[in-house]
Amino acid sequence: MKKIALFPGSFDPFTKGHEDIVLRALNIFDEIVIAIGYNSQKKRYFETDFMLEKISSCFANYGNIKVDKYTELTAIYAHNHNAKYLLRGLRNTTDFEYENTIAMVNKDLYNGLETVFLITSPKFAFISSTIIREVHSYGGDVSRYIPYQL
Amino acid sequence: MKKIALFPGSFDPFTKGHEDIVLRALNIFDEIVIAIGYNSQKKRYFETDFMLEKISSCFANYGNIKVDKYTELTAIYAHNHNAKYLLRGLRNTTDFEYENTIAMVNKDLYNGLETVFLITSPKFAFISSTIIREVHSYGGDVSRYIPYQL
Amino acid sequence: MKKIALFPGSFDPFTKGHEDIVLRALNIFDEIVIAIGYNSQKKRYFETDFMLEKISSCFANYGNIKVDKYTELTAIYAHNHNAKYLLRGLRNTTDFEYENTIAMVNKDLYNGLETVFLITSPKFAFISSTIIREVHSYGGDVSRYIPYQL
Amino acid sequence: MKKIALFPGSFDPFTKGHEDIVLRALNIFDEIVIAIGYNSQKKRYFETDFMLEKISSCFANYGNIKVDKYTELTAIYAHNHNAKYLLRGLRNTTDFEYENTIAMVNKDLYNGLETVFLITSPKFAFISSTIIREVHSYGGDVSRYIPYQL
Amino acid sequence: MKKIALFPGSFDPFTKGHEDIVLRALNIFDEIVIAIGYNSQKKRYFETDFMLEKISSCFANYGNIKVDKYTELTAIYAHNHNAKYLLRGLRNTTDFEYENTIAMVNKDLYNGLETVFLITSPKFAFISSTIIREVHSYGGDVSRYIPYQL
Amino acid sequence: MKKIALFPGSFDPFTKGHEDIVLRALNIFDEIVIAIGYNSQKKRYFETDFMLEKISSCFANYGNIKVDKYTELTAIYAHNHNAKYLLRGLRNTTDFEYENTIAMVNKDLYNGLETVFLITSPKFAFISSTIIREVHSYGGDVSRYIPYQL
Repeated sequence: MKKIALFPGSFDPFTKGHEDIVLRALNIFDEIVIAIGYNSQKKRYFETDFMLEKISSCFANYGNIKVDKYTELTAIYAHNHNAKYLLRGLRNTTDFEYENTIAMVNKDLYNGLETVFLITSPKFAFISSTIIREVHSYGGDVSRYIPYQL
Repeated sequence: MKKIALFPGSFDPFTKGHEDIVLRALNIFDEIVIAIGYNSQKKRYFETDFMLEKISSCFANYGNIKVDKYTELTAIYAHNHNAKYLLRGLRNTTDFEYENTIAMVNKDLYNGLETVFLITSPKFAFISSTIIREVHSYGGDVSRYIPYQL
Repeated sequence: MKKIALFPGSFDPFTKGHEDIVLRALNIFDEIVIAIGYNSQKKRYFETDFMLEKISSCFANYGNIKVDKYTELTAIYAHNHNAKYLLRGLRNTTDFEYENTIAMVNKDLYNGLETVFLITSPKFAFISSTIIREVHSYGGDVSRYIPYQL
Repeated sequence: MKKIALFPGSFDPFTKGHEDIVLRALNIFDEIVIAIGYNSQKKRYFETDFMLEKISSCFANYGNIKVDKYTELTAIYAHNHNAKYLLRGLRNTTDFEYENTIAMVNKDLYNGLETVFLITSPKFAFISSTIIREVHSYGGDVSRYIPYQL
Repeated sequence: MKKIALFPGSFDPFTKGHEDIVLRALNIFDEIVIAIGYNSQKKRYFETDFMLEKISSCFANYGNIKVDKYTELTAIYAHNHNAKYLLRGLRNTTDFEYENTIAMVNKDLYNGLETVFLITSPKFAFISSTIIREVHSYGGDVSRYIPYQL
Repeated sequence: MKKIALFPGSFDPFTKGHEDIVLRALNIFDEIVIAIGYNSQKKRYFETDFMLEKISSCFANYGNIKVDKYTELTAIYAHNHNAKYLLRGLRNTTDFEYENTIAMVNKDLYNGLETVFLITSPKFAFISSTIIREVHSYGGDVSRYIPYQL
């Protein structure tokens, strides 16, 4: 059976750190679904559909990477798409504490949903979506932090 | 003199992790006051009075557990209710860093106010009010995480 | 060449912990620029100009401490003011993880911009602007936490 | 029933940080037993009996503080002395991670054994037995870090 | 090509926490090699061959779990056994910081060697080989912490 | 007055991470003294004098970098060499917690001794002396981690 991993996130925006995790995880899983979780109530900096298009353009040559958006609970989306694994990157201890609780809840909501972690490569570990939004909002150059052109 | 511990929080909502701390602390203190701190300016997910009623229902059989709400500084409320102890649970290092600063300020504001910590039992350590609100807002089942029925 | 360090922050409000860092750093650098970063979109608790005046009053006798406000990226401001160093205090591991990422981005945006860290003195380590705002908003006494009168 | 807390440690040496925890805990418990865990196989820097005498001298005026030494498992010692609580101080996140695992094992070995934590006062938080041994071995003055004379 | 993950460790002793990681990882990889790293210079508490036998007995019914011992660098062993993945469990932030550096060195020594992390299940997170050795050395019962009989 | 910073450590061995800190600190201080702390009782992996020579060779062209060895308390050595600053690198939160306590003791032992921290560059953050010794002892290639030839 095909091993499908779901890589969920708000990806506001998708960064080179995210790309690093996806490409490395390709050696572990048969298919990776990058899914943008969004919520019509919550304002984004980059629109969901704009980001969906940007991420898709990055992986256009990869038949085993799919890009999607979703608005339900991550565990439900994973279940509906036969993804038995969640894929997440860890950059530091703050990430670890946060991801630890999320992983436990997801396993609890959908028994057997296993979260698999890779540690973000050092050169990308300082890149966060929050910092990119901040730099971008001040007109700074963020092109080194994202794998596509804005 | 009766040893009264104040267990303050926003409890939005009160979780099984909170219940775990209260029940274990009953062996240490003579009376525990669970007090919901609220602020008319800040929007809650679960209404203060609704939560007050739910928490009260959990501990209806415990004569030494009181449930209340308050809107002043925690240290002031403790002082006014003769509580010489604050009770708090620790789940992980992020909690620790946060609680450390709060405990110092509370001791500073009301000399002698001592914060006593228990470490949340492992099986409840991943449960947070934030995650419950998130899951609940998507229609997920949160009944395993709370000690009452919604 | 004069060694100028920029001490950037929102300083909402400036605390005795901030003062501690500035005074200790005076032994390392020739000049320190305390710069209040603000953003017309983001609401502050204490007004930028009010805080600018308060901080200035603290260091009126120090010819080598300047106080300013800015609204651009920190790295750009540093570059425009010939500050080759950013000065930051570390209170705990949560600070460390946050400052680590900020320091890397700043070095990346302005090559050579070096962030220099001092660890906040223990007696001030629990003081945060967030807690001061909280205590102040409830009418609590915050005079012990700030080096000026409100 | 008397509430007895066991404060276990190797106390090699007992520090002002330890004293801080014991004195603050006196307001919570009826009796505190400071117990030096030792192991004839493991070499100490300060002899067990020497330290026992020094600690005893500190608390000679406290009828509700006892000092002892033990060589069995902490949980067994607690059980044999009717101590239903372990008392421990937390200085930082490294302490937290370590104490978390120890507390869980102790509760597991002796059902109901509850570890109660206080956060070490900031002015003592940097004092560790390890550092005192280091400073003392180089002939440095450690008198400010210990509540007795060597 | 078969996906082989190496689960390296000193396993002195192998715990239920280790077993948890291995069994969950079976859903990700085709084969898992549990390899006891040993060093003739370093004294163990449980002999390497004794532990090898105990671990083997746990997984006797799993054709895709192998147990071995090795004395070379982990990256070399992985390379020689066609394992492109290292498998490690994370219990807390102390583990995270340690494993982070080890993972980077292993990737550096053997390009492409990817370390995959699972977070240890909460109920096993407090179990460490160190604590088991400690409890066992005092004659305490450790049978709940290990998946075999001593 | 010349600003002299002491960079103390056991440097067993000195790494590219250490070199990174020294070279970056050259922009802050007028002179840096790299001092190998040793203890005739404690066995080293690389001999003190051998390492002293290797470090010296790295900085032969820098008139403002001195290399030395010492066996007294770091604070005493700093005092005797007119170094008013200690220089230390931070790689992660484990380093932070450790360095925090050391810095406080050093300031306490020699009033005014200020520890200045830089965060190790990400590409060197995983390099530790411990790991280098481990890899080297197994015959692995460590040349990428040290700024000299063994």
